[in-house]
Amino acid sequence: MIRKPPLPGPSDQATHTASATTSRYTQSRTNLRIIPLGGLEEIGANMCVVEFGDDIIIVDMGFAFPDETTPGVDYIIPDTKWLEEHKKKIRGVIITHGHMDHTGAIPYLLPKLGDPPIYTLALTAGLIKKRLEEFNMVGRTKINVITKDDQLNLGAFKLKFFLVNHNIPDSMGIAITTPIGTVVHTGDWKFDHTPVNEKPAEFGKIAKLGVEGVLVLMSDSTNAEKAGYSQSERELGITIDRVFQDAKGRVVFASFSSLISRMQQVFDISAKYNRKVLVTGRSMVNNIEVALSLGYLKVQPKQIIKSDQAKKYPDNQITILTTGAQGEEAAGLARMARGEHKTIKIKAGDTVVVSASPIPGNERSIVAVLDNLTREGANVIYNKVLDVHTSGHAAQEELKLMIALIKPKFFVPIHGEHHMLAAHGKLAKLLGIPDDNVKILENGSILEIDSRGEAKQIEDKIPAGYVFVDGLGVGDVGEVVIRDRQLMAQDGMFVIIVTLERKSGKLINQPDIISRGFIFMKNNDELIREVKHEVTKMVDSGSKKHLEPNWAYLRQVIRDEIGEYLFQKTQRRPMILPVVIEV
Amino acid sequence: MIRKPPLPGPSDQATHTASATTSRYTQSRTNLRIIPLGGLEEIGANMCVVEFGDDIIIVDMGFAFPDETTPGVDYIIPDTKWLEEHKKKIRGVIITHGHMDHTGAIPYLLPKLGDPPIYTLALTAGLIKKRLEEFNMVGRTKINVITKDDQLNLGAFKLKFFLVNHNIPDSMGIAITTPIGTVVHTGDWKFDHTPVNEKPAEFGKIAKLGVEGVLVLMSDSTNAEKAGYSQSERELGITIDRVFQDAKGRVVFASFSSLISRMQQVFDISAKYNRKVLVTGRSMVNNIEVALSLGYLKVQPKQIIKSDQAKKYPDNQITILTTGAQGEEAAGLARMARGEHKTIKIKAGDTVVVSASPIPGNERSIVAVLDNLTREGANVIYNKVLDVHTSGHAAQEELKLMIALIKPKFFVPIHGEHHMLAAHGKLAKLLGIPDDNVKILENGSILEIDSRGEAKQIEDKIPAGYVFVDGLGVGDVGEVVIRDRQLMAQDGMFVIIVTLERKSGKLINQPDIISRGFIFMKNNDELIREVKHEVTKMVDSGSKKHLEPNWAYLRQVIRDEIGEYLFQKTQRRPMILPVVIEV
Repeated sequence: MIRKPPLPGPSDQATHTASATTSRYTQSRTNLRIIPLGGLEEIGANMCVVEFGDDIIIVDMGFAFPDETTPGVDYIIPDTKWLEEHKKKIRGVIITHGHMDHTGAIPYLLPKLGDPPIYTLALTAGLIKKRLEEFNMVGRTKINVITKDDQLNLGAFKLKFFLVNHNIPDSMGIAITTPIGTVVHTGDWKFDHTPVNEKPAEFGKIAKLGVEGVLVLMSDSTNAEKAGYSQSERELGITIDRVFQDAKGRVVFASFSSLISRMQQVFDISAKYNRKVLVTGRSMVNNIEVALSLGYLKVQPKQIIKSDQAKKYPDNQITILTTGAQGEEAAGLARMARGEHKTIKIKAGDTVVVSASPIPGNERSIVAVLDNLTREGANVIYNKVLDVHTSGHAAQEELKLMIALIKPKFFVPIHGEHHMLAAHGKLAKLLGIPDDNVKILENGSILEIDSRGEAKQIEDKIPAGYVFVDGLGVGDVGEVVIRDRQLMAQDGMFVIIVTLERKSGKLINQPDIISRGFIFMKNNDELIREVKHEVTKMVDSGSKKHLEPNWAYLRQVIRDEIGEYLFQKTQRRPMILPVVIEV
Repeated sequence: MIRKPPLPGPSDQATHTASATTSRYTQSRTNLRIIPLGGLEEIGANMCVVEFGDDIIIVDMGFAFPDETTPGVDYIIPDTKWLEEHKKKIRGVIITHGHMDHTGAIPYLLPKLGDPPIYTLALTAGLIKKRLEEFNMVGRTKINVITKDDQLNLGAFKLKFFLVNHNIPDSMGIAITTPIGTVVHTGDWKFDHTPVNEKPAEFGKIAKLGVEGVLVLMSDSTNAEKAGYSQSERELGITIDRVFQDAKGRVVFASFSSLISRMQQVFDISAKYNRKVLVTGRSMVNNIEVALSLGYLKVQPKQIIKSDQAKKYPDNQITILTTGAQGEEAAGLARMARGEHKTIKIKAGDTVVVSASPIPGNERSIVAVLDNLTREGANVIYNKVLDVHTSGHAAQEELKLMIALIKPKFFVPIHGEHHMLAAHGKLAKLLGIPDDNVKILENGSILEIDSRGEAKQIEDKIPAGYVFVDGLGVGDVGEVVIRDRQLMAQDGMFVIIVTLERKSGKLINQPDIISRGFIFMKNNDELIREVKHEVTKMVDSGSKKHLEPNWAYLRQVIRDEIGEYLFQKTQRRPMILPVVIEV
């Protein structure tokens, strides 16, 4: 759920000065501060500031997808107003892995923050570079490729890294050592003893951190409400293998383009059943290209074919790997479902596998796609029918193990909606972390720990609302614009134009009415006539009083009275926009 | 997923005449026709016509809830244009059970259909009557209360009934015997060997129908993709009991007001733990009142308390039963979550149980409610945490058993989205129903069976789109209005008003711009100035040509060119509305 910003939208914050902020949040030189900017009230927009004295590092820089409360918006990114005022202190940006909810805001935010250098593992770096190409930002951004065993000194911070499992290779956690103790940030993770095409999480390093002592653990809460363990990617492979074994014709496999481990499974299983793989969808093609070139995907030579080669093979020797597992209108699968795909037409005998769990809000679009695929005769397999997707996030037993290994003094659940953080906090308490040391934060919260190791949550939060990306605009769509969109989506709008003679205040023409989304105008002559009549009366009675013309007042009267009139007639409340034109 | 109507919206169908329709769909006197009007492309709006010769009966008359493709709409009901032309043939309306997706359209449709009599069991009748009171339709509608063992003759049809399990008592299936064979309509059902406060489904009657021979089985497909069996309501009780056992303070139990069996569980378990029950939410209060008065809910005297009595009891002796399990903004639970409930304030120590599975599209609102409740300190328990809800619909093994018992010649899966119907059809084929005898229909399909028992699907469908209920309007919001709402929700609107001198075609004032939902106008003076400048140029160049003034053409030019200009500047496409005013 995208919560409304707790403070006025970005456009209203223009008067918010640097000096005022600085004074409000002045801190002692020897205090550690953890300030999440996004990802603690929603899934997505992950971004966290760790500050010590004059040094800041940032962990992740992601976006979130809009929902029905933010219509027309493309992406939602964290509000970095506060950080921009402190950009001189930023020593680096660490990206834990290559998913968009951790990388998607980079092109928008990095320039505002003085282009600080990025540090991350090779695959993540490759995916970020590919995306920056689209923004013409390649030369500008400094991306430093690290390895999992590197140590990094950034200002007051010493950083070490440990690999975790997720569903993309090169997912890592970070141990951030400060003069007063170590903060461990897990990134997105699960423990997978039998991962695909990568190693299990580095238990040794994690256990060693615990032995050395950890001040704060920040850990992924996505599945904190799910009992038991997450399923291994390899076990999932057994299910997918069975689907391929049963498939008589083509297999169309739809998933997230960022699930590189899943892609590897599809290539391996396709190879086993002697199937060539046709890749479609821009982000799928891009990500596979990056992963192949860096050696993170291992594919037999000539297994990948182009669409013009596909004709040469019988259907049971073809796998189609596509985007669109969330029902996205413009993506490959939806276009196939609508019969609008350039080269691929769904037919009876095709097996379509949708390997993803729906992001809340996408359910209806996915159903529309499934229905259309079924109508075309495809055998459609998705999560409700068979487990063809597994989460990349730890469930309760793994979460407990992480806490038990790290044994932190303070526990800060991250990456989740509030109820998920609360559930994760409960687990930590069960494992013996004192109630007071479990810190449930929000976006913009400031957790401050002093040199004696005492923690307090500063009462004032920093402004940490959302910034909306819509078309070319970043932040120009604020709360007012969104509210207007919502209102017009509900009951439409109703513009009333009165053209008056300047001196007399008398109507020159009949009032004009333009309305959309309210009623079908052609069938409601009577209502429109009545409104024109009412407006005419209002203007006449105003002009008869021979007062100074007061158009603001006239507009207000029209808005109120016509609004009420229309509500009585229809029980709807369109947005009423009175316009007075003087000639 | 609410599919777009296959035919133009209601408002465009004014010219659709009775005679044309009748001739197109003329049928032989001895043919049986099954015509679903709703519920076969969505969950909701269930309504089905069974016709033989000059007689029609209708099974169910429900509404569906809107989704993001139908913003601002209150309910969606089936289009009955065709049926209205044949209303003289209607012998009765049979309602299978008291849920809104089977009863909700009654107040809107019955008057259009000549107020045919309703036949249904006692609880369903009670719930319908209660609702008709709100529409001032009580005297007008003839509701005949039947019993499960009644036989009913309606025109050519002989009707018998059999009880099924669901999650409201008095849920029934119907055996409709016609001169050429029997049609069985299951209603919504599952088999529950240990139901709460009702009897198991009438297996005997069902098996007997199978023995006697059934021409067509129409059966509920909601969970046709779910392997295994549905959970018994009584097993669910064990989980709910455990929650009550652990609860230290108040238990707030949110569910659908129509799940009368669930309510019974809450009363029983509350009594066991010595808790009084406070009921809140209008529909909850109403439904409990009806169920109590008819004896379908058995509650100890004085167990139900009013809110002013609640203060007298300690928290651990109070259960609050409320509406709002779908996150509905105006319902009890959401108001408590926002701290806006008149009498109930959530506090630490409260246990909140959300006993429902989310209707697709409601996930985000539910999460917002859960998050707020958690913030207030409540222990929130919902389906992801613990199984506190069970479906009222049969899973695959039960569906197979029904088909095996009935052994129909033809199988028509109903009640579900297309992919659910397809999955149900597959089950029927597995059980030996020949492929050609499994008929996957859509809303408006006509399945015709002749006296030799041969079935064909008539090529022409009847018009069976959706009718939108919005405020007081039924059907006045059509596709055009909905599309405008969607467009304005995406990128807002942009009205350009040019005031011209009639004769010269010259601008009198600067163009006026009114825009909402596009950009924040105050911060975009420059853009607005540019647009005014461009529009002025367009008008000037037109007036200089000294042509006949052609305002339609001018509006078109403004719409196209300013639309393109704004898109280049913002990558957004607001709805452009040019207005030309002559004075």
